[in-house]
Amino acid sequence: MIDDRPALLTFIRDYVTPSAGEASRVLAPWQSFEVAAEEVVHPRGKVCSRIYFLADGLLRYHTTDRDGAEVTKFFTEPPYVFTSLRSYNAAAPAGESISAVVPSRGLYLERAEAERLAELPVWNDFVRLLISEVQGFTEDILLEASTRTPEERYRATLESRPDLIRQLPLKHLASYLGVAPQSLSRIRRRIGR
Amino acid sequence: MIDDRPALLTFIRDYVTPSAGEASRVLAPWQSFEVAAEEVVHPRGKVCSRIYFLADGLLRYHTTDRDGAEVTKFFTEPPYVFTSLRSYNAAAPAGESISAVVPSRGLYLERAEAERLAELPVWNDFVRLLISEVQGFTEDILLEASTRTPEERYRATLESRPDLIRQLPLKHLASYLGVAPQSLSRIRRRIGR
Repeated sequence: MIDDRPALLTFIRDYVTPSAGEASRVLAPWQSFEVAAEEVVHPRGKVCSRIYFLADGLLRYHTTDRDGAEVTKFFTEPPYVFTSLRSYNAAAPAGESISAVVPSRGLYLERAEAERLAELPVWNDFVRLLISEVQGFTEDILLEASTRTPEERYRATLESRPDLIRQLPLKHLASYLGVAPQSLSRIRRRIGR
Repeated sequence: MIDDRPALLTFIRDYVTPSAGEASRVLAPWQSFEVAAEEVVHPRGKVCSRIYFLADGLLRYHTTDRDGAEVTKFFTEPPYVFTSLRSYNAAAPAGESISAVVPSRGLYLERAEAERLAELPVWNDFVRLLISEVQGFTEDILLEASTRTPEERYRATLESRPDLIRQLPLKHLASYLGVAPQSLSRIRRRIGR
């Protein structure tokens, strides 16, 4: 079994600079997880009490609109730390599901362990910087969704995240762009891909 | 001049429970600001190095799309703590402007002072909870923008934030809903308001 702790430490070091002692304390309580393609990591309606590190694979956050149609809110690509943030903070049922698009694996931390880590300023700094970054990404997606057509968003995503597009089944990409799969097929044909 | 510190303390106490000593240390370095309707609090393109508390008024975050049309991303209603988060964290030029919709006032904290407060766990907890909450709001707006029509969003906003709708000039509400002002006028006539 692959140990994903070194990858997690590398990821954390992009945000903060823990001492050797802090690093080993931060890494100690994480446990491994592994999911198959299309398997749910965290289901909508259940309280999320874990923080996860995605070491490999691809995830999507999704829910359904009032007509029951699936809506994909975000994709999470490795390496990244994620949770169902609102559910985790409020200890309330999650408004969205997190599922694997392809086989995925990584680490997770139970809430009680995360709360113990909150004694470490370096861990708090990491969490604050990470949430701020996620907020920035969400704002970007919101701005794109409200100022660009699905075709423009497809082109931009193709350019900025080619690995993501390559791995995604058509239906998930369509539910992210807010179009029917048939419309996305037309867009793809039009731009010759 | 109204002292907005008690209102700020009440706001902070919704998230965390500072001791009397912590509360006075947190409140001490804030300074007052006041802006007229349509005045810019923080302009796009400039680094934002302040954290603000909106005690009274109404603000909007806005930018322009590639065709130069104005897009309103969010509204901030008092009492709330805000900044241009991405700009503040990265010390990079802000991607959006923050402007007053109506005369607004409150307090602000310079970055150097905020960094000194980071010695206090209660301040760090407050900031983390607040950013997480903002992230949740942004996700909600994103989900609404991608699953609802402008008319549905108008109805929902009218129901959940009637004070906001009452104060907003038509053009700003239209730029938030992503429609032309004339389309919003039609929507309003149709639902008899």
